[in-house]
Amino acid sequence: MERQQTQQPAVLISQPEKRWALLSQRACFSFRFSCCGVSDPNVMAEKPVWEQIGEGFVQHYYQQFDTNRQNLADIYTDSSCLTWEGEGFQGKNGIMGKINSLPFKTIQHSITAQDHQPTPDSCVLSMVVGQLKADDDQVMGFHQMFLLKNIDSKWICSNDVFRLALHNFGH
Amino acid sequence: MERQQTQQPAVLISQPEKRWALLSQRACFSFRFSCCGVSDPNVMAEKPVWEQIGEGFVQHYYQQFDTNRQNLADIYTDSSCLTWEGEGFQGKNGIMGKINSLPFKTIQHSITAQDHQPTPDSCVLSMVVGQLKADDDQVMGFHQMFLLKNIDSKWICSNDVFRLALHNFGH
Repeated sequence: MERQQTQQPAVLISQPEKRWALLSQRACFSFRFSCCGVSDPNVMAEKPVWEQIGEGFVQHYYQQFDTNRQNLADIYTDSSCLTWEGEGFQGKNGIMGKINSLPFKTIQHSITAQDHQPTPDSCVLSMVVGQLKADDDQVMGFHQMFLLKNIDSKWICSNDVFRLALHNFGH
Repeated sequence: MERQQTQQPAVLISQPEKRWALLSQRACFSFRFSCCGVSDPNVMAEKPVWEQIGEGFVQHYYQQFDTNRQNLADIYTDSSCLTWEGEGFQGKNGIMGKINSLPFKTIQHSITAQDHQPTPDSCVLSMVVGQLKADDDQVMGFHQMFLLKNIDSKWICSNDVFRLALHNFGH
């Protein structure tokens, strides 16, 4: 299945976070619906554009989360959903209320693996596996997924699910 | 944001797998885009319909995976994407080629937690955390996410990402 193609400039920015900022402003975004293919001849030597968008988002998200998490309000809309450890929150205010109320002062995320896919509705789906350290607590595993959607020429996070990896290990 | 509503019968089937079979045949599916609300007055006492769809799918998927995994071909289309431990596969044949070639004879999945959300494009997004035991190997943690989409009155899996939880624990 092939999505409509539009002329796009090459995306050659090497820093994922700057790439996220650039991509989030692109008015037209489209890609072939292919997991493995390259979306645009201009970026033939680059990763597929949805992978660039996903990686840029992931770097941006955790950098903001670890340094100034109230800035994350920019990535959500009033229709966004967050499920945090099984508890649901909706909308920018609901989500930011939860994120800002998390009971630690400092946190550091470390990404172990991230996977990105294009969806049939021209979104980008990202799954992240990693570790986090909050205040003086022990390091914990976590996994998180995001659905990124282009709305009004801006990439936003429409869906966000977070779980600590406390309970999925055998003995 | 509210999706168009259609009249739907109450979904009162208690077994998730049967519910999946029923729901997958429903011609019209729509829901309010709300993480916490109830989608349909007819199922006021039930879980939101996307949660029923997600739970039914998850039970169906792992039951088939553990007993007769070639049956999973039914849930994918030629546009579906699978990322398995970082490796990408596309289409029913590509995905089933990978699933059928996995090098174990027996496998058992155990679900620890599952989260489901509706998406802005009327899909269902599911994240699963659990454990698996393949042949005589040790129990391993895993996480998997699915994007479920209604195409031609049938629910299919358009996106599937799987990772073992081997590397996201600190020491």
